[in-house]
Amino acid sequence: MQHLLGLPQYQQRIDQYLINALDNIAVNDQQLHDAMRYGLLIGGKRMRPFLAYITGESLGASIEDIDGVAAAIECIHAYSLLHDDLPAMDDDDLRRGKPTCHKAFDEATAILAGDSLQTLAFDILVNHPFSEQVKRKQLTLMKLLVDAAGYQGMCGGQALDLSATDSCITLAALEQLHHLKTGALLQAAVLMAAECAPNVTTDEKQALKEYAQHVGLAYQVRDDIIDITSSEEELGKPTGSDLEANKSTYPSLLGLQGAQQKADDLFQQSLQALRRLPYNTQNLSDFATFIIQRTS
Amino acid sequence: MQHLLGLPQYQQRIDQYLINALDNIAVNDQQLHDAMRYGLLIGGKRMRPFLAYITGESLGASIEDIDGVAAAIECIHAYSLLHDDLPAMDDDDLRRGKPTCHKAFDEATAILAGDSLQTLAFDILVNHPFSEQVKRKQLTLMKLLVDAAGYQGMCGGQALDLSATDSCITLAALEQLHHLKTGALLQAAVLMAAECAPNVTTDEKQALKEYAQHVGLAYQVRDDIIDITSSEEELGKPTGSDLEANKSTYPSLLGLQGAQQKADDLFQQSLQALRRLPYNTQNLSDFATFIIQRTS
Repeated sequence: MQHLLGLPQYQQRIDQYLINALDNIAVNDQQLHDAMRYGLLIGGKRMRPFLAYITGESLGASIEDIDGVAAAIECIHAYSLLHDDLPAMDDDDLRRGKPTCHKAFDEATAILAGDSLQTLAFDILVNHPFSEQVKRKQLTLMKLLVDAAGYQGMCGGQALDLSATDSCITLAALEQLHHLKTGALLQAAVLMAAECAPNVTTDEKQALKEYAQHVGLAYQVRDDIIDITSSEEELGKPTGSDLEANKSTYPSLLGLQGAQQKADDLFQQSLQALRRLPYNTQNLSDFATFIIQRTS
Repeated sequence: MQHLLGLPQYQQRIDQYLINALDNIAVNDQQLHDAMRYGLLIGGKRMRPFLAYITGESLGASIEDIDGVAAAIECIHAYSLLHDDLPAMDDDDLRRGKPTCHKAFDEATAILAGDSLQTLAFDILVNHPFSEQVKRKQLTLMKLLVDAAGYQGMCGGQALDLSATDSCITLAALEQLHHLKTGALLQAAVLMAAECAPNVTTDEKQALKEYAQHVGLAYQVRDDIIDITSSEEELGKPTGSDLEANKSTYPSLLGLQGAQQKADDLFQQSLQALRRLPYNTQNLSDFATFIIQRTS
């Protein structure tokens, strides 16, 4: 993976938080607990927590407040991967080079572990020891997470993704799909972090939202490109899976060069949005650079 | 169904609330929305909402506050049924005499609709227009729902239930399983309603909790009895399914007469708990009577 300042430190920080969260819940069924741990700690770049941390860093939020936000968002992301990998959904055997949860355990356990990780997200958000200032905004944080996670966000995007399989959809439909499936949660990472900071104005939140939307879409365009240009070893899962699943992608709609141009345009738009912010946002522009340059 | 004062009115009220809730969410994927509606409005006795309403009635809570609590709990219940019915879990084709969600739609849609209904539960709890008095307790309501729904409650119970299939478990293990799988959500209905009422003491909440635990277990014992004594027509789903799934039940551990005695004992204990409350709890004792007399 390319170098990105602070990434390993924040990865370690969020992993430790999640380990503690898992250690602190009552274990009624050992296998369910093991599967939750497997799904949550299987690895991954922790992009969403990282984005929450660096946004908080730029805006002057307390890192301890961001812990709660970052962990809740990662639980939603982890639950979605467990369910998306199921045979009835994307039917994937490998995730990050390891057996997917339903392969390591069984389907029923993977479904329940996903369900439990969704609940854990809300558990964390409601029980995290937020500072007094952020405690007053806990319901707002909850609303942002609900909108990002459910039918109006990520889950709706996954449904659109499934219904788009085996059919050619328009570029606009593909964008809406990805705005929901991937963008909603990245946007929540930025906006929830902004709620933890003092005195962020409505206009600034709007600029942050646009930044997140552009980066989120760039992430997906890049993902589509990687899927056809990367090796299985680099990716930790089979390449060409979109093609095999007969899904519309940016390269299939725009060609490889057109898709790369799209990613570059989105990158520039994300930087423009950052320029409207009266903060040092170097880390956020570095993140955008990282997203469009990544190869795995 | 036996007569139970106020049941049809409250059923109608909660159904209307849930219809409005579904009408008010953004429809990104029509099939997902249809499946959510199917899962939420397929019918059923609405026991958990009813219990929340009559508890609120006894304790002097506002019915508009209880609406939010009852609807959130019913969404959790509905999501759990969608996932429990899946081929990888209980593999049921019929629910309340109709095709289960994955039969009416497909597995992927049933998984996503269940996921979305869990999010909808938290959506409702966070966005319901609670009275000023209850707004202050919204995080407490959220905590109660999280504990009842997740690995520490219902979802943990379902995991125990799956791992108990094809094995003979002790009576204590069976009780723990049902306390989590069914009891946790019934208990949440009572305790969340109590949070909506003014001036309920800790001791009174404890008595309400015990009432709910006894009634919850009685409900399950009665369920096990009905499964072997009722006709498929009465039940709306195949009878003898526990036996077929080789699950431990109260009749299999205690015999039919022993199980009926157990239900009667739990009924008496639930009435004893009610006697510790300085409210008119006639409707709650009627509910307990209804639970142990029901035949479907």
